[in-house]
Order: sequence, then C-alpha cells, then structure tokens
Amino acid sequence: MSFITFEGIDGSGKTTQARRLVDWMIGQGRDVVFTREPGGSAGAEQIRKLVLEGATDRWSAETELLLFTAARRDHLERLINPALEEGKVVVCDRFIDSTRVYQGLRQADMRELVAALHRLMIHREPDLTMLIDMEPHLGLDRAVARGGEEARFEAFGLELQKTIRAGFLQLARDCPDRIVVIDGNRDIESVAADVTAAVEARL
Amino acid sequence: MSFITFEGIDGSGKTTQARRLVDWMIGQGRDVVFTREPGGSAGAEQIRKLVLEGATDRWSAETELLLFTAARRDHLERLINPALEEGKVVVCDRFIDSTRVYQGLRQADMRELVAALHRLMIHREPDLTMLIDMEPHLGLDRAVARGGEEARFEAFGLELQKTIRAGFLQLARDCPDRIVVIDGNRDIESVAADVTAAVEARL
Repeated sequence: MSFITFEGIDGSGKTTQARRLVDWMIGQGRDVVFTREPGGSAGAEQIRKLVLEGATDRWSAETELLLFTAARRDHLERLINPALEEGKVVVCDRFIDSTRVYQGLRQADMRELVAALHRLMIHREPDLTMLIDMEPHLGLDRAVARGGEEARFEAFGLELQKTIRAGFLQLARDCPDRIVVIDGNRDIESVAADVTAAVEARL
Repeated sequence: MSFITFEGIDGSGKTTQARRLVDWMIGQGRDVVFTREPGGSAGAEQIRKLVLEGATDRWSAETELLLFTAARRDHLERLINPALEEGKVVVCDRFIDSTRVYQGLRQADMRELVAALHRLMIHREPDLTMLIDMEPHLGLDRAVARGGEEARFEAFGLELQKTIRAGFLQLARDCPDRIVVIDGNRDIESVAADVTAAVEARL
C-alpha cells in the first residue's frame, strides 16, 4: 500500500486532502513523498508547461496523450519508482485515472488508446486511489474562484464536470479493490477523517 | 508515390539530396512540400527543442521515444497528411526509419517498443525511402566539420556510425520494395542523378 493517488473533479478538494494525508502519515513516522501530475519531475514539469500553455486546440487529443505519457514516464522513472524502491510511501495528486477520464472525453476512440499506451509505456497502477467525490456545482464554484494556470481544464462548465464525475465513479465501480470513493461534500475535517480511516484500514 | 523520405547516417548528404530532389520535382511542375524530422511543424519543433537541449541522459530512451512520437504525430496531422490529401508530394528529411535505427541502439528492448508505438500512434509508412549510404568515416568528417545543434547525435564516434549504417542497410534488406539504397560515396551530381532516376522509375 505504498503508492496512493488522489483523484476527483476540479475543486473537489483532492489536493488539500492529499496534503492532509501526507501530514498525517509523516506524523505516524512514515517516510512520505508528495507529488502531483501532470508534472512532478523536472522533465515532466517542462512537458506539462508545453501541454498546458497556448490554445486548447494546439495539440490533438493523440499528441496531448503522448506528451502526458512522456511526462508520466519521466515522473515514474525519476521520482515515483526510486522512492517506492527506497521503501517510501508516494502520495500523488492525479495519476492515470485522470488521463482515463479526461482524455476519454475528447474522442470516442481515446479510451482504447489510453489503455494501450498505459500498458505499453507505464504499466504501474496505484496501490490505492482515493476518489474525492463531489457535486459538480460545488466543485466548479471552487475551481472557478481559484483560477490559476489549469483554467483550460476547468473552463469546461457544469455539464462537462458532471460527465467527468460520472467517469470517475465508473472507474471506481470497475476497480472496487483499488479505488475508494470518499464523500467530498462535507467539511475538510470530516473528509480527512474518512481518508485516514480508509488508508489506515489498508496499511 | 507521394510521401518520400530520405535517410542515412549523419553527414551522408541526405539533406542536400532531398533538397535537390525537391527542386527537380518542382521543375517538373509538381506541387512539393519539403520538411524534416525531428520537428517539421510548429508543435513538433517545440518538442524537438525540448528533446535535443540539455544533457544526453536528460531523458530515458522510453521518454525520448514518446516525445519523438508526439512530435511525429503533430507533424503528420498538421503538415504531412493535409499536404498528401491535397495531392501534393511530401519530401521528408528523416522519418520513422531514423527512429528505428537510432532508438534501437539505446537499449535491446527498444526495437519492439518503437514498432508498437508506431503501429499504435503513427501508422503511416513512407511510399518511398531513399537511403543515402556512405562510408562512416566520410560521413563523420562532414558531420563534425558542420557542427550545429544536432551535435549530440553526431558525437557518437566512428564505431557507432558503423552500427547506424548497418542498421539502415538491414532495414533496406527488410523493406526492399520501399527503401532504395543509393551509393552516397560520390560527388553530389552523380548521387542526385541516381536519386532522380529512382524516383522517376516509380512515378
């Protein structure tokens, strides 16, 4: 149970919850690395910058997927895998499930491409994934209020957030042993208590 | 016979010969686009810059392959495929065969990965490939004298140039219908005459 990822729609509070979990695990005396995607290693951050800057139609769905896969490969090789091999816990804000859901939205045939590229170039699945589930209108309000460089991913609107949420929940149904759904429509403390309980139960 | 690529070791004269062929075809009244890899479209050029800058161990073989594949996908979608669909001839300085040979050198398992990624994300093979074959010591002298930003690919030395040459010749044996081997150990005019003769025979 050493590679833990956080997933959810924008504004779901997953980053806050991931940081809370890291603090809690450090308090428990564990050696924990916190990271995030896209990005997470020096090379992956540069690829991320290349993907996120510029017009939304700058890259096709397939080219964007290849760039994100290159970034993930770098992140895995340079940070995640070495940390896991040293016996550390790695907590990552977004990973392959975000790619499955967000890229799957772009074109009908993208799901198979995402799966095939993952099999070929990445392989690694998280040991445990916390899906912070939230009503899309709550998440969207937070995401819009926050702004920031990922605005292009968050500018899709309420209908799309609903589709993204449904995509994550479908993945949770497909992988019930790996993905734990946490009700994120509550105060930070209550959500954090559920997250630590879920992790503790699996440690 | 509308997608023609040029391949060969560094310093083999393939760029000069590709330009000569383009000029000749334009003189014949054909609509020709000349391009090159890595790069060739705005997005691909930015990816190329990211790959070629920095230390040679900056990217693993697999990450580099993903970045080159992303660049090629962009190049195909934005430049090569639209030009071919408009009925133009596309002449490209380096394409998938360079990836097959150069990436195949990095690790034993790279050949299969190159092939699998090509099948999954690129598909397109050139209609005709001109392999400008040259004695490695002649090519290396030229490449070193020229210098430039691709120095990292050309700094491998004579032994590696021999291996690269052998890799291209092996591909030519594997794909005799597509790849024409041209003896590049001669003056530019003689080589150009063989190139135009080979293309003319297939038009």
